[in-house]
Amino acid sequence: MTTAATATLPQAYDDLIQHVQQANLLGSSGSLLGWDQETLMPSKGLAHRARQLAQLARLTHQMGTDPRIAGWLETCEGSDAVTTDPHSEPAVNIRELREAYDKATKLPESLVVEISETTSQAKHEWAEARKANDFKRFEPWLEKVVALNLRKAECYGWAADGEPWDALADSFESGMTAAQVAGVFVPLRERLVGLLDEVRAAAEAGKGPSNAFNELKLPIDQQKAFVTFVAKAIGFDFDRGRLDTSTHPFCGGTHCNDVRLTTRFHEDNVNDALGSTMHECGHGIYEQGLLEQHIGTPMGQSVGLSIHESQSRMWENQVGRSRAFWSWCFPKLRDFFGDAVAGLDEEQVYGGANIVAPGLIRVEADEATYNMHIMIRFELERALLKGDLAVADLPAAWNSRYKEYLGVEVPSDTKGCLQDIHWAMGAMGYFPTYTMGNLYAAQFFEQAREELGDLDAMFARGEFAPLRGWLNENIHAHGKRYKSAELCEKITGKPLSADPLMRHLEGKLRPLYA
Amino acid sequence: MTTAATATLPQAYDDLIQHVQQANLLGSSGSLLGWDQETLMPSKGLAHRARQLAQLARLTHQMGTDPRIAGWLETCEGSDAVTTDPHSEPAVNIRELREAYDKATKLPESLVVEISETTSQAKHEWAEARKANDFKRFEPWLEKVVALNLRKAECYGWAADGEPWDALADSFESGMTAAQVAGVFVPLRERLVGLLDEVRAAAEAGKGPSNAFNELKLPIDQQKAFVTFVAKAIGFDFDRGRLDTSTHPFCGGTHCNDVRLTTRFHEDNVNDALGSTMHECGHGIYEQGLLEQHIGTPMGQSVGLSIHESQSRMWENQVGRSRAFWSWCFPKLRDFFGDAVAGLDEEQVYGGANIVAPGLIRVEADEATYNMHIMIRFELERALLKGDLAVADLPAAWNSRYKEYLGVEVPSDTKGCLQDIHWAMGAMGYFPTYTMGNLYAAQFFEQAREELGDLDAMFARGEFAPLRGWLNENIHAHGKRYKSAELCEKITGKPLSADPLMRHLEGKLRPLYA
Repeated sequence: MTTAATATLPQAYDDLIQHVQQANLLGSSGSLLGWDQETLMPSKGLAHRARQLAQLARLTHQMGTDPRIAGWLETCEGSDAVTTDPHSEPAVNIRELREAYDKATKLPESLVVEISETTSQAKHEWAEARKANDFKRFEPWLEKVVALNLRKAECYGWAADGEPWDALADSFESGMTAAQVAGVFVPLRERLVGLLDEVRAAAEAGKGPSNAFNELKLPIDQQKAFVTFVAKAIGFDFDRGRLDTSTHPFCGGTHCNDVRLTTRFHEDNVNDALGSTMHECGHGIYEQGLLEQHIGTPMGQSVGLSIHESQSRMWENQVGRSRAFWSWCFPKLRDFFGDAVAGLDEEQVYGGANIVAPGLIRVEADEATYNMHIMIRFELERALLKGDLAVADLPAAWNSRYKEYLGVEVPSDTKGCLQDIHWAMGAMGYFPTYTMGNLYAAQFFEQAREELGDLDAMFARGEFAPLRGWLNENIHAHGKRYKSAELCEKITGKPLSADPLMRHLEGKLRPLYA
Repeated sequence: MTTAATATLPQAYDDLIQHVQQANLLGSSGSLLGWDQETLMPSKGLAHRARQLAQLARLTHQMGTDPRIAGWLETCEGSDAVTTDPHSEPAVNIRELREAYDKATKLPESLVVEISETTSQAKHEWAEARKANDFKRFEPWLEKVVALNLRKAECYGWAADGEPWDALADSFESGMTAAQVAGVFVPLRERLVGLLDEVRAAAEAGKGPSNAFNELKLPIDQQKAFVTFVAKAIGFDFDRGRLDTSTHPFCGGTHCNDVRLTTRFHEDNVNDALGSTMHECGHGIYEQGLLEQHIGTPMGQSVGLSIHESQSRMWENQVGRSRAFWSWCFPKLRDFFGDAVAGLDEEQVYGGANIVAPGLIRVEADEATYNMHIMIRFELERALLKGDLAVADLPAAWNSRYKEYLGVEVPSDTKGCLQDIHWAMGAMGYFPTYTMGNLYAAQFFEQAREELGDLDAMFARGEFAPLRGWLNENIHAHGKRYKSAELCEKITGKPLSADPLMRHLEGKLRPLYA
């Protein structure tokens, strides 16, 4: 049907697509500069880099708000060739470009530049503050970020019964509101609390997996070689991407053929390096799975952050923390680390990768407590934006919630409210997409298992291509064809639910803590 | 006087400067993408990178040819505040921006884009052809490059008694013509041939330095640590720059505070790694020595390629191959390479760094024969552009000249006409600036020695700051204030001559081969 429609597409469609591709091309240059800033840039290059990024953001914003776009969109929206099939390539592109254009034109260029310049500097101040455990250094920058986010929210607007957070979250997950998120998080928390109580009781009774795997010190060079091997094995394509090191792991890049992952290493935590790497590989495999012919248009872009996160979480948790994965991977440990892992058995390694213990650091958290970290951030950023919490009071509020929800004392802001880069990057309304991603990951994975058969047997043989292919076909190749809720219904036949994630966690943790 | 002039500068001057800074800012983003392409980019990212670079080249070219510039320039050229002192900041900026604008507006945008796209691809094809010793693979791309250069030359035009080469060379060294270059190269060659004859006779008689230093195999990790130490010691600032690895060493970057050097390593050639590193450090120290307040304007740009090369050559040769340098550096070898260098004495190392022997590879050539490599390239590119030589006949012409001038048989195109990236990058008329750089380096260095006193004693103590400071003050800080010939007269009181270089070479080589 796309072919029939293409035959009578208006010239405006071609003009629009070409224009949008140019805007995205320019944006992709900014992406490389951003990646370089986080990985390689010399420290004193910062001021110039901020100017470069601000200029590219300004030029990209100018292209994305070109007044000709309004005319092209109107012509296309009036064309049957575009609109007849709502899931056809032109219909999807026009629908998404309309949303993006309306959103972009609501922000004045001066605000876009101010946000880019401020967050470029704020990221640097955050990194220094984190290093020095000096929240006061970051405080004025976070105040600026909150104020800019409020100005942004006011430009976008929110529903009468909503709040500023909703306006910001919509950019990361179309239609998500704080009230809705709270509505999903509460029942999830209740079931999760029950499971965590069981686990805690078992742990106090001396049951649960061995920690031996996590007590090893392994040289960073060997860890690098090991995680690179795993990244290749699960299917991240190094001819079309890279894996480097940064303070906070992320997935960047410029194109499906140039995807830049980062991870991080600590001598005493190979699990963190592996988990971070497999997580970012999930993002990277999604980006590499977008169709080249659609790059630069919505049909060649990911659905949104929740679905993106479902991919990273699935490779990190459903795959990387499974017994089947370790039955393939355990012998490889000997290849990379030699005698240092000689005393371990497979059960200790599988168990060690799945220890549940409340902790301070989100990115080091286990699958079960992870969502608690997200809930805290969600509550705090919601309060910051509502004006219910002053930035100066953030450390105290952070620390008291960690005590209340996770039972841990926060010893320093470095390990507390300075641990994440997100707010420094200007991203508020973003964190909940992580837990949404966990929920989608579990639901998609149950479906993949149903359709592909014995995934465990495949993983145990080191065969990851069937799962990757299934994700490519069902998710990646569609770009933005479906909204996330629609995609979930289409793939799994059901709306998103907490059940698959809870089944996954209960099915794994109850035996481990029996 | 700059202050007085500034007081009455026309508004057009501020408008022009601001516009030019924006154009250069955008260009600097392209520079980072170019650096990344040579050092880190995954192989399949090439096509997208070519589109990114073409877009940035197009946008930068558009900004550089904005018709408003003509009006601003005319207003400024009519303003006494600008023109009274020809070496004042505004006078220099306007003079140079006029030259650049006239040059830029002679090239149609379509040609600029075509050159960028073609050379981006040609560089890749060159790298593959070089790897595979497959000139036929590169041949069609070199044909395209020659054709594009001829179109470029036609746009610029050349004097009635000149030739296309002149039009291209002018971009690298203002005013340089093929006839002039030939006029300098011939006397240099005559004196050099005499010296090389002496050296050859001595070598045949069994005299000359020991080769022991060059027969070592040293681990690349240790070489990296060693050359990084030397780069820091001579004053390349790693807070404002990086040193990475690429096939062909170069100096790139985006700003005086973000200078990107590359070097290369072979286990059996630490001299190459050290020489390449000190060479690129010379370029990098120049870039880091430009004044931050002038960045983005001609006053914050280097004079031209010959002067740039004079800086790299001086650190590589006048400093890095001197007896004084090695009397400081020799003990360091033990620190970095341990027992692997235990059998060497200082004389063997100094001598080993100064062996004169005709060879195949320009960037591995000694100081004395180096200029022969340049003469061959100059003659060949001149012939390609004149139509006297077909691209298909290049390997044969290359090989026969190497036999004739240097007495060596070229065993493969990889070690022959495929060794350099320059033509693949589209740069024709560029090579002679290397030998011009050698001549300037020798003449400047004699002057520095006269003004600073016992440079050798300083080097022997590891003190490189006085020379670096002298270069900063006399050359780097001036940006484009003086043209190269004028700068040479201003600093040394004399026009450029082959005498200092020959004194330098004879003074070193005659004792070594006595």
